[in-house]
Order: sequence, then structure tokens, then C-alpha cells
Amino acid sequence: MTSLPVPGWHLLLDMYGAKHLQDAAALELAMRAAANAAGARVLSAQLHDFPEGGGVTGVLLLAESHISVHTWPELNFAALDIFMCGSADIEAAARALETALAPASCRVTRTARGQRNQASQPAL
Amino acid sequence: MTSLPVPGWHLLLDMYGAKHLQDAAALELAMRAAANAAGARVLSAQLHDFPEGGGVTGVLLLAESHISVHTWPELNFAALDIFMCGSADIEAAARALETALAPASCRVTRTARGQRNQASQPAL
Repeated sequence: MTSLPVPGWHLLLDMYGAKHLQDAAALELAMRAAANAAGARVLSAQLHDFPEGGGVTGVLLLAESHISVHTWPELNFAALDIFMCGSADIEAAARALETALAPASCRVTRTARGQRNQASQPAL
Repeated sequence: MTSLPVPGWHLLLDMYGAKHLQDAAALELAMRAAANAAGARVLSAQLHDFPEGGGVTGVLLLAESHISVHTWPELNFAALDIFMCGSADIEAAARALETALAPASCRVTRTARGQRNQASQPAL
């Protein structure tokens, strides 16, 4: 993927059939592993479990922006996003999430952020 | 904008010349106003100021997903995103953010999330 001037890339990951859709602790570990793989620094984490099998919603704030997760167990679906600026390796973060969550399918949409004269990038 | 089955839409807002790029309290108020305009419910908020004019990074977790902000005062740039599922009015949230932050320019990229058989939507 093309290296950009700051700010950087924003990846949206639509995962079907992933693991841990109702396990906030496991999802936090997966996001922390992704931050670590990218060389990013975690500022804080917040995750919420919804009652009665309602899934998990959560975010890691990073010095380099954020990683979020929202799950719909009833749809077997997880929506994640990764936004990273600077020299953080966002593709390594995406690979770490896919390794940890092992989805049956994962669609990634990539958008360049803060490139005043550059169009959005469709999914590669 | 087309109404979707769940989960919903994800909007990426690239703002140049917005207000409050170094004011975490004002940015939190703007995000809370956006959540309120959409009819969304705030679960928690976390914002961080970077020292020495380094900007603000923060997120509101919602029952309907999230709103985030990351600012680069040195570039006069703010990157926001809004992800909302269910019946929340995401376009009302986007309008509320633009009203509160009054950017000189705002580019919005819209992507449908969790639509197994639907392609991503480019910026409208």
C-alpha cells in the first residue's frame, strides 16, 4: 500500500464468522496485539458488553489514532476499524486482527485521510 | 442516503479549517451534540490532549457504535468518523458536527458496513 504523508490511512474491516464476538477481554487482547504489531502506543481502552448476547463495542485510543470493534453475534458479524498516522504499520495491525479473530471472510476498505489533494482509495 | 438493514453506515469526515482543534472539552461537546442529534445513546467518552499544541484525540462510544475525533493543529486538519447502526440518524450527526466545528471544507466518505452482498459506497 502506498506510503502517505501524514495523517495516514483508515481501514474498515467487515468480518463474518470471526471468533470472540461476545468476549470483550479477548477482543481487547486482539486490538492490543494489533497496536503492538503496528508499533503504535495505546493511550486507553474502553469496552462494553451488551447484555443477553448483544455483543461487544469498544475502542483503543492510540497516540496514532484508534482501533475500534463492534460485534453483532446474531449476525455472526464484527465491524472493526483501524486509523493510524505517522510511521505505524497499519497493514501489520490488520493482519494481527485477522490472525486473532480468524474470520471466515474479511472485506477491507481503505481510505486515505488528510490528503487534501488526493481522492479516496477504494478497497484494494 | 439509502436506508440499510443493520448494521449501518460509516462516515469519514476530513475537515480543514475547523474550530476547536486544541480544545478537548469543546470537541467532546460537539460529539455529544452529534450523538444527540442522531438520537444515539452515549456509553462513555474518552479524550486526550497532546502536549505542546499537539492536538486532541478522542472517542464517544455509543450504543449504536462510535464517533471519533483526531486533530492536527499544525495542519489545520481534523479527522472524524461516525459509525451508527439501527435507526440512528447518522446524517443528522454529521450536520451537527459541521455546525459545531464550522470547517472551511469537509469531505465525507460513506461506506456501508455489514452488508454482505453490497459494495462499498464511495463519497456521495
